[in-house]
Amino acid sequence: MTRLALKPLTFIVFVACSIALPAVAANHPNLVINQQDVKAMKLAITQPGAFKDAFDAKLSAVDLGLTQPIEVPTPKDAGGGYTHEKHKSNYQQMYDTGIIYQLTGDKKYAKYVKNMLLQYAQLYPTLPLHPKRKSNNEGKLFWQGLNEAVWLVHTIQAYDFIYDALTPAERNSIEKGAITPVALFLSEQSPHTFNKVHNHGTWATAAVGMSGYVLDKPLWVERALYDLNLAKKGGFMRQLNELFSPDGYYNEGPYYQRYALMPFVTFAKAIEQNEPQRKIFQYRDGILLKAITSTVELSYNKLFFPLNDAIKSKGIDTIELVNGVAIAYGLNGDPRLLDIAQQQNNILLTGDGLKVAQGLDNHLQQPFPFTSALFRDGQHGDDGALVVMRQGEANDQAIVFKATAQGLGHGHFDKLTWQFYDAGNEIVSDYGAARFLNVEAKFGGRYLPENKSWAKQTIAHNTLVVDEKSHFNGDVKFANKHHPKLAFYDAKQDLTISSASIDTAYDDVAFKRTLALVNIKQRDAVIGIDIMRVTADKPHQYDLPIHYQGQLIDTNFDRQASLAQLSTLGNKNGYQHLWSLATANLTKEKAANELAKVTWLNDNGHFYTLSTLVNTNFNNATDEQMLFTQLGANDPNMNLRQQQSFIHRVNATNHTYVSVIEPHGEYNPSKEYTLAATSSVAGLIYHQQDELEAVQINFTDGQQYLLAINQTDKAVTQDTQNVISVNGVQYPFSGRAQLLSIK
Amino acid sequence: MTRLALKPLTFIVFVACSIALPAVAANHPNLVINQQDVKAMKLAITQPGAFKDAFDAKLSAVDLGLTQPIEVPTPKDAGGGYTHEKHKSNYQQMYDTGIIYQLTGDKKYAKYVKNMLLQYAQLYPTLPLHPKRKSNNEGKLFWQGLNEAVWLVHTIQAYDFIYDALTPAERNSIEKGAITPVALFLSEQSPHTFNKVHNHGTWATAAVGMSGYVLDKPLWVERALYDLNLAKKGGFMRQLNELFSPDGYYNEGPYYQRYALMPFVTFAKAIEQNEPQRKIFQYRDGILLKAITSTVELSYNKLFFPLNDAIKSKGIDTIELVNGVAIAYGLNGDPRLLDIAQQQNNILLTGDGLKVAQGLDNHLQQPFPFTSALFRDGQHGDDGALVVMRQGEANDQAIVFKATAQGLGHGHFDKLTWQFYDAGNEIVSDYGAARFLNVEAKFGGRYLPENKSWAKQTIAHNTLVVDEKSHFNGDVKFANKHHPKLAFYDAKQDLTISSASIDTAYDDVAFKRTLALVNIKQRDAVIGIDIMRVTADKPHQYDLPIHYQGQLIDTNFDRQASLAQLSTLGNKNGYQHLWSLATANLTKEKAANELAKVTWLNDNGHFYTLSTLVNTNFNNATDEQMLFTQLGANDPNMNLRQQQSFIHRVNATNHTYVSVIEPHGEYNPSKEYTLAATSSVAGLIYHQQDELEAVQINFTDGQQYLLAINQTDKAVTQDTQNVISVNGVQYPFSGRAQLLSIK
Repeated sequence: MTRLALKPLTFIVFVACSIALPAVAANHPNLVINQQDVKAMKLAITQPGAFKDAFDAKLSAVDLGLTQPIEVPTPKDAGGGYTHEKHKSNYQQMYDTGIIYQLTGDKKYAKYVKNMLLQYAQLYPTLPLHPKRKSNNEGKLFWQGLNEAVWLVHTIQAYDFIYDALTPAERNSIEKGAITPVALFLSEQSPHTFNKVHNHGTWATAAVGMSGYVLDKPLWVERALYDLNLAKKGGFMRQLNELFSPDGYYNEGPYYQRYALMPFVTFAKAIEQNEPQRKIFQYRDGILLKAITSTVELSYNKLFFPLNDAIKSKGIDTIELVNGVAIAYGLNGDPRLLDIAQQQNNILLTGDGLKVAQGLDNHLQQPFPFTSALFRDGQHGDDGALVVMRQGEANDQAIVFKATAQGLGHGHFDKLTWQFYDAGNEIVSDYGAARFLNVEAKFGGRYLPENKSWAKQTIAHNTLVVDEKSHFNGDVKFANKHHPKLAFYDAKQDLTISSASIDTAYDDVAFKRTLALVNIKQRDAVIGIDIMRVTADKPHQYDLPIHYQGQLIDTNFDRQASLAQLSTLGNKNGYQHLWSLATANLTKEKAANELAKVTWLNDNGHFYTLSTLVNTNFNNATDEQMLFTQLGANDPNMNLRQQQSFIHRVNATNHTYVSVIEPHGEYNPSKEYTLAATSSVAGLIYHQQDELEAVQINFTDGQQYLLAINQTDKAVTQDTQNVISVNGVQYPFSGRAQLLSIK
Repeated sequence: MTRLALKPLTFIVFVACSIALPAVAANHPNLVINQQDVKAMKLAITQPGAFKDAFDAKLSAVDLGLTQPIEVPTPKDAGGGYTHEKHKSNYQQMYDTGIIYQLTGDKKYAKYVKNMLLQYAQLYPTLPLHPKRKSNNEGKLFWQGLNEAVWLVHTIQAYDFIYDALTPAERNSIEKGAITPVALFLSEQSPHTFNKVHNHGTWATAAVGMSGYVLDKPLWVERALYDLNLAKKGGFMRQLNELFSPDGYYNEGPYYQRYALMPFVTFAKAIEQNEPQRKIFQYRDGILLKAITSTVELSYNKLFFPLNDAIKSKGIDTIELVNGVAIAYGLNGDPRLLDIAQQQNNILLTGDGLKVAQGLDNHLQQPFPFTSALFRDGQHGDDGALVVMRQGEANDQAIVFKATAQGLGHGHFDKLTWQFYDAGNEIVSDYGAARFLNVEAKFGGRYLPENKSWAKQTIAHNTLVVDEKSHFNGDVKFANKHHPKLAFYDAKQDLTISSASIDTAYDDVAFKRTLALVNIKQRDAVIGIDIMRVTADKPHQYDLPIHYQGQLIDTNFDRQASLAQLSTLGNKNGYQHLWSLATANLTKEKAANELAKVTWLNDNGHFYTLSTLVNTNFNNATDEQMLFTQLGANDPNMNLRQQQSFIHRVNATNHTYVSVIEPHGEYNPSKEYTLAATSSVAGLIYHQQDELEAVQINFTDGQQYLLAINQTDKAVTQDTQNVISVNGVQYPFSGRAQLLSIK
């Protein structure tokens, strides 16, 4: 097959060199960038503007690169090591130098890329498997095949850029020595990865499919789209079907969604250029555009929500999303995408990048709408959901409620966990992944052992832990088969509320969590309300942690602190990593239905108080404690960050946790003032009446509010009328939930 | 005296109301702002520009204030409490509303200030001492007299602004009920504070002196300048003589220098307006201007160096320095001050504020020169010094070497400590003060108990601790009598070096530290070199801590970590607050003259490695350890931040610590690359030959450098020629120190 396909190509190209505008030569470049794009870009760099600035910057960098000797080292190092980083910078340099060749027409750029490609063509056929390969995804140039696929995605574009500047013999050498063997290694020789419905599979299929277009090998494209056997059991189309939910949510979460986006949108763009009849961007109701937009929506203050295995410094300015936003804008011209592009501050030298640059030059951007949204999980949208609640501007209050499915191997055991954001910062936070990407000294830059022993465990999250065991007993295979059930999601002005439940995380324990983000306009205050209802057949120990960001300021109860000795809180399932700093016996400290309050000060200068009901007489709790912990025990290599948390521990059969989180005041040592450093929540009362429930919030100034909720499983519209009776008074409310001022 | 002085004033004012432009009325306002300033400002607010923007913003705020009822509550709360904050906001509001009256001429503003002043005039005479007063500095409106003085500094200016809008009877009420009793309370009734050569004294004398100008009481001014008895034992002039060194360094450090600056420059400006013949700004070779400039110079990335009791979020944008920079610019028109004013982004509604606004509108600013500098301490400049070493731009590398005197009650026991900064961040840091300013729940907002038990102790700093005791055994009175001796300071392009010693911090132990900041241009690398030479009569335990900012990445030796139990490192002098995380036996781990290396990753994305010599055979050390600690033990109220440190412990009689700190590489998880995560220092060799010494640095790539130093006590010029012999090779060098490339 390979030899057969090469022959006509060589022939046509030979012709291309002897006449003015040959048919096939006219097709280069034709992946992400086509000849029309090149023409427009060549014009744009003659005029001042954002695009010319980006071109000038890239030109300088590329020119500097040209003064360096080409080095294509024998692969040796794992991630972060010298040869790993060199091969990474090489493909980026080939790509950059190639596009500069297209824009300037100066042959020296093409020559540099050609020479590097020829060195790869010499080296690659001699390579065994990488000495530091990962057993489940082997590479040759790199320790894992994933990097090899990324190499080819870039390199095939660079080759496409300089194609016309090469002689047939040069093309033959490069294709035979480098492109084809890498493509075959990634496909025929790595069937497990290539056919996998997973982001590794997407990179591999994108690399091979794009190479198929450039080398004119339609079978490679077909295999990329429909798996090696064209059986549609794997391949790009199946990935598009399964990896995203109908709302564009990627099952591993936004961190990997961002990563996966790159090959999805890059390959899709190449398909669109070469075979527009496939209507790839319309496929599945425009799933690719939804995936791009939802990745943006799953961020706060430019950083992605750190769900599952996620490195917390990744955000919307990552190159994958720069590509995604540019391609999306190229397709739909939505001026709200320019808002994101402006924050990304990175103009691509592509046709779509030019459109973005021109849009920004003409100040066409409109604010990107960061609003409350439901992201259903699962291929059919029925495997739970991620709920994002927002109030005010993009950097005001947000709640992330994770009622999604497990998310495969990178998933965390954190069903129904939540996070709270305010004034630009994390307030109640998720640890994310335990990993120092590419830092050789930190476990070779891979996921640290503490990722499994801490970051994935339930206690590392803000959700219920029963008997100090993680959800699904930490069994990934079992976890992947189960997911929470979304009860409802309802968003209106000033009130977003959602509820979900799960009964498979533990043998005999079920829990249902209802979270609401409420704007109390009369008070100019936004609060979060959390109702976690736990039911079981027999007594258990329930732990509900709050991983808070900031410095503890005060509690309204006494704590017994460990002063000169620290011990761990437990010995497994993550508890072995927690130092027990202090404990408080709430049963002794508080009367029935009183509030336990914890106040902390975040780096953003604001105070936050979590107020939670204790000794509620409708529960049969025998014992309630608040445990204060710090992360870092059993961490011989000091791999963990020193985060703090407090854990509300209850021994009971059934228990309902009712809590309010309240941002308040300001600490401004620079301007020497401190405002409202104490909470203004005076009391909470929880009411339940069949399917209706209500949380009454009494403030210190006498104002009282009732959040009334209809928890029915039946359909509810805004017109549904309910009446809840509180202390003999009838309170009518409509719809799923409503905030009532009752005094 | 009071009644006598009131009479002529009343008379003159009465006359003032009956003729057009009476002599005395013409003098209002005449403190920081005079009538000429008002005229210029009135013109400026008719034209677009930074000044008009500032006016418009202030006008809106003041107009909003006018809609609120006036409240002058009976004093009740300590710092941060309601009445405390209300009286603070009241004086600010009176000041702001008063200046708006001057600029608009609208009587409603004057009326609002008048009404508030009249309420104070009614309340103040009824007040006993504040219920929460501090014993050493009592107030009536506030818990401490200091706040009372600040109140009067603002209020007398507000009164001056509206003076012309008042009837004689109103003036009489306000002066008799509020201004005069507060001024007398601060002076005659608080002689200890008023006569004190200390920032509390400066606020008191400024308040009383400025009131003297407005109420035409020359005796008040004289007392403010020369103490209550006009004996020149205290007072403003003596404060100017003693509180600043000849280089403008304030003996408590930059945090309190910033605070003290406000009354100094405000009162000085009022003196200049009323009695220019005193030439106050020329006094003592222009000490006030030096004090303003040095406050700016004692900052890094906009924040002050956190020496002694210092809250770390304070920086050059604090209102005190906004005032200082504006007044300085008004005097000298130095365009480099506009660079700072631009960063402050706060235009004052004063004559000087107008000049700053116009300077910025006309883009006159030039970069402020952040360069290496020596700040001698002490009235005569011979009580040690603070040394600031810088390389590159303002936010590149800096070393702060603290060889100052104790700095009175706010001083820390940290002789010869250092800090290292790079790429905008603290790398080797100082804890600063343990305090949450104005946060009632945190010990009433005062200095926390941990300020004494931790923050002031020697182990909280990056300097030598002998036998786990703090310098001067933590005795402030004794400490105030001693100071380090500056051996030399030498700054040239690419090399800044300084050395200082002290032999009074411990009974029989003397130590000399030499610090250098070196730009190795051939390597494009800046490193810090630290030589700490300790001598004693008998064996001791020496601890040299590094309080590092970031996450530990690696050490080149094994650590024995405490996994499931933590204990404190000691039981007093700050050691009781340190958890012992891990220890390493360097004597066992390393051969003689090998390096112990610790690498960490700062939030700025760069790696830092401290490489230090161990088991040096020229020492008689019997045992060397590296101890890894975390702050937070014996902290029942969770008042301390969770900082980490490593401590090089040596048991010896004499010992020389030789270390290099090296910024390297970059961790960029957003762009997915990690560069140079490992140190490139391969070896250090310490050479000593009589008064000459040298540190040889061998890099992993084979390059070798020698930092040769002449430690003589005699004078050294750039022409002084020296020759040091290293392994039989003679290396000539000139001046105090020189970096030689030897391979």
